[in-house]
Amino acid sequence: MRLLPKDKKALLKAALGQIPADLAIVNAKVFNVFTGEILPAIVYVYDGFIAHVEYDDVDHVEDAKQIYDAQGQYLVPGLIDAHVHIESSMLTPVNFAKVVLPKGTTTVITDPHEIGNVFGARGIRYMHDCGMDVHMRQLIDVPSCVPSVPGLENAGADLDYSIIEELAQLPNVIGLAEVMDYLAVINGDERMMKILEVFEKNGLYIQGHAPFLSGRNLSAYLCGGPRTCHETRDTQEAINKYRAGMHIDMRDSSICRNVKEIFAGLKDFRYFDTLSICTDDRESDDLMSVGGINDVVRAAIKNGMDPRDAIKSATINTAREIHLENLGAIAPGYVADMITLPSLEDMKPSAVFTNGELVAQDDKLIVEIANKEFAIEQENSVNFKELTLEDFKIKAEGESCMVNVMAYDGKELSTTHLSVEELKVKDGYIDISDDPDLKYILVINRHGLDNKALRIVRDFGTTCGAVASTISHDAHNLTVVFDKLEDALIVVNQLKAVGGGMAASKDGKLLHCLPLPIGGLLSQKTAEELNDDVVKMKTALCSVGLDYMVNPLMRIVTAALPVVPDVKMSDLGLVDVNKKVIIPTFAE
Amino acid sequence: MRLLPKDKKALLKAALGQIPADLAIVNAKVFNVFTGEILPAIVYVYDGFIAHVEYDDVDHVEDAKQIYDAQGQYLVPGLIDAHVHIESSMLTPVNFAKVVLPKGTTTVITDPHEIGNVFGARGIRYMHDCGMDVHMRQLIDVPSCVPSVPGLENAGADLDYSIIEELAQLPNVIGLAEVMDYLAVINGDERMMKILEVFEKNGLYIQGHAPFLSGRNLSAYLCGGPRTCHETRDTQEAINKYRAGMHIDMRDSSICRNVKEIFAGLKDFRYFDTLSICTDDRESDDLMSVGGINDVVRAAIKNGMDPRDAIKSATINTAREIHLENLGAIAPGYVADMITLPSLEDMKPSAVFTNGELVAQDDKLIVEIANKEFAIEQENSVNFKELTLEDFKIKAEGESCMVNVMAYDGKELSTTHLSVEELKVKDGYIDISDDPDLKYILVINRHGLDNKALRIVRDFGTTCGAVASTISHDAHNLTVVFDKLEDALIVVNQLKAVGGGMAASKDGKLLHCLPLPIGGLLSQKTAEELNDDVVKMKTALCSVGLDYMVNPLMRIVTAALPVVPDVKMSDLGLVDVNKKVIIPTFAE
Repeated sequence: MRLLPKDKKALLKAALGQIPADLAIVNAKVFNVFTGEILPAIVYVYDGFIAHVEYDDVDHVEDAKQIYDAQGQYLVPGLIDAHVHIESSMLTPVNFAKVVLPKGTTTVITDPHEIGNVFGARGIRYMHDCGMDVHMRQLIDVPSCVPSVPGLENAGADLDYSIIEELAQLPNVIGLAEVMDYLAVINGDERMMKILEVFEKNGLYIQGHAPFLSGRNLSAYLCGGPRTCHETRDTQEAINKYRAGMHIDMRDSSICRNVKEIFAGLKDFRYFDTLSICTDDRESDDLMSVGGINDVVRAAIKNGMDPRDAIKSATINTAREIHLENLGAIAPGYVADMITLPSLEDMKPSAVFTNGELVAQDDKLIVEIANKEFAIEQENSVNFKELTLEDFKIKAEGESCMVNVMAYDGKELSTTHLSVEELKVKDGYIDISDDPDLKYILVINRHGLDNKALRIVRDFGTTCGAVASTISHDAHNLTVVFDKLEDALIVVNQLKAVGGGMAASKDGKLLHCLPLPIGGLLSQKTAEELNDDVVKMKTALCSVGLDYMVNPLMRIVTAALPVVPDVKMSDLGLVDVNKKVIIPTFAE
Repeated sequence: MRLLPKDKKALLKAALGQIPADLAIVNAKVFNVFTGEILPAIVYVYDGFIAHVEYDDVDHVEDAKQIYDAQGQYLVPGLIDAHVHIESSMLTPVNFAKVVLPKGTTTVITDPHEIGNVFGARGIRYMHDCGMDVHMRQLIDVPSCVPSVPGLENAGADLDYSIIEELAQLPNVIGLAEVMDYLAVINGDERMMKILEVFEKNGLYIQGHAPFLSGRNLSAYLCGGPRTCHETRDTQEAINKYRAGMHIDMRDSSICRNVKEIFAGLKDFRYFDTLSICTDDRESDDLMSVGGINDVVRAAIKNGMDPRDAIKSATINTAREIHLENLGAIAPGYVADMITLPSLEDMKPSAVFTNGELVAQDDKLIVEIANKEFAIEQENSVNFKELTLEDFKIKAEGESCMVNVMAYDGKELSTTHLSVEELKVKDGYIDISDDPDLKYILVINRHGLDNKALRIVRDFGTTCGAVASTISHDAHNLTVVFDKLEDALIVVNQLKAVGGGMAASKDGKLLHCLPLPIGGLLSQKTAEELNDDVVKMKTALCSVGLDYMVNPLMRIVTAALPVVPDVKMSDLGLVDVNKKVIIPTFAE
């Protein structure tokens, strides 16, 4: 695929020097991703494309409407994030653009998977349309796995083959997003084969997602269609995948920092053509402070990668990965996305150009990105019937009962095991009041179905109060963990009222609510505005016992993610992740 | 684009080891184009695709229908020729496959430009269909420039935009062939813009052809659409193009050997991602003796390129250049084209596999490639009205006249200049009998038009007799150079009778005729059979004075190529190549 100019004949004239360029960037040290050289050059831009790069006569500037003096700094292609869920920032696509652009991210490959689980195709169209004309390229991969675990949870949508095929026609769609259901791929599942075929036959990009896959399973996955992965964590895993021809997207998200381990495996290889860089999930405060893909490039350099190779991995390698021919380089015919850098190692852009326009300078956005209004933003996506106190209790008989408990493997770990425990029964209900490490976990379907599941969890981490969230991967139901019923009722009712978000309560009082009214996932605030709210939310979570976590927000949002072993909750009950069955409340 | 297996579910099962592989190649040192490693491995193949590569457990061979012992040799991907005109071998696509396969060429990107100039779309379909099922991949680029120089010559066809668009749908078509008319590109010529748009919008490959282009002209060409070039000759030219992001196909044809000069320019660059290798034009005897793309790889290594980089340039780099995702590597999901090599430097394959089938061993083809019959092969493409002796003479008045003569710049050079000369007139005709360096040159339209042009040439190189050819780039009219009329008549009549080819005569006798009955360009003989004929033809050409040439065949075939400056013949007269006008016979 190629990004085409509005008027090619005019671009040709500008290339020939027959009409003035829109912009000439002078006094720049250009990083050439083809040769690996860093050379003085003048870059001429017309209509958003690079018309000419002059390496020979760098003292004579030809006619241009605007001249930008790079003051001897480096000029490198705009950075491309190989895989990101914008929803993880809790920002709208517009506000996301505002925060990542000053850090040098000019293109992102996004997977609107989260909002897809809430609103289905409507949600994906919203992210697509909202991400247009935002002075950066937000390219869309259509989510492949909505719901993530069919039959074991109810999401807000079921994206079948025909809807996916329709979404693939949208102008900013470039491929299929992280194919997480590796079993469906390697076992040749009919639905998955049909989805993959749409993208294969149209020459579109198919993004993989294959944590820990190796050996023949990895080979089968690669034969099946997906040929890339951003879920590599381990050094040997990186070596195996890279050897197998899998394009590795090295990830440093807000919580998973994999660059170090991955590069340790690849550093002695001769070629880095099939290596890219991504953020996957970064929160808005991270994006504001350390940055986005520039921060991952910086990490790669710190871990021993040559700065040129690291920048190449974040530019042309990724453009090639997604089959875009003229993005990611400073050369004639390429899109004029570029950044200036005082230092390659620091990766702090002093100027950012997208489509040949100066959009940010010295960490400040200098263009207006218009807010757009969409009807979907006004919808309350938190739909369930009024709850009563009865919904927060588990009926039981006798004096005690054997219960299947979801037990965390450790306070910092997201993995769990099944723990069969004998629990007291009081007044006809399970009573956990004696054991401070036990809590209730309730998952309420918020997508209009009248179902919910209540179980017991050990070592969740809270010591008191209640924590609730409508960000609850991947089905994004309303999940609440609590010991006292009245605390639970407070946060549940609060989230229903504001249309979703996160909330914590203690001693019968709301500690804080972070409203995320768009799909229960996104705020309409800018990163700066939202940050204050997020800090307060974290403080509230710390005060109910999650102060030991690097990011206390993360605990509740993954408690109902039935792809992380061994057992996780869903709105249908406790899921045996490995066997793919629902485990009953009571053990035999 | 991706090459898809017939039955993906079966391939997945083979990858998982649930059903036996068709083939296991054991005891091999596999060259991994992703990592640059050379490692012991077992390669499992199913249904023409690589199902699994086992690097860990290389001592245990799993179930496979056939086991091939590579005896510790190197196993590298099958070689890809980035650009070739099969017609230059004078072989049919079937016989071409027979000769290049044992040398390790498993894929060629062909431009059926020559036969396109004779038969138009029918000729291209012939090459396409004849090149199917030949145990190798003959991928087609649709010729972009038929005729090469519109208005200054008459070819047998005029491939307009709509025909090109139609041909682009053929299954083995992958792109647009060498866009030679760089002026049409950079000046935004309407017809050219339309053609380029077809391929750009469909994400197809656009092959460039830009000899000596540099500076802003090169930038404009790249902005226009073509992004590759196999016409680089000079070291500085290579540096300029590579820096500008042009994918360079290093060529060593039978006559143009550019690898040395190109690699001298690129050798210190950090990246060779955008470097490929091609043969362009190789005669059958060359293909038989030294080989095809393997010989170019060998030349690259001899000129200092690391063998791994050279092989990568002849495999995955080229697959990426033409947008084929799963060709050119030994990895799961890739097409099972591979060769074994006792030595990387020697590049003499001991075994060649295409689509997982062993097709050649120790320089011998071991599979049957069926000859197919096509009606077009029986057509006589040499169509013009019977000539008389009068057609071989130039009428003139007075005792002498001033004549515009096409004068070669040297006996070994193909460039020319215009020489205005005073020539004798005898009996009402120009008389050149006094000057042994002057000859007549006659170009007869053989595509059914009743026109021809007769002029005078200086320093063509022959000393006596007549030389004629229906290979006469690019319009492939019948071109004959002679001094005695009766010799000319012999070769012209002979070529008309046999349906084209080359012929030489002397002293009223036919010395030799090399019949090329298919389109006046190709023989139906195999390379071995044809070789004898070619040797005799060369001997005949030497005996009329072309013995000083490295390849005496080349002189006549480029005498009517009106893209090589300054002046060249066509069926319309003497062409001023730079001014693009016809020069009259007589000077003022």
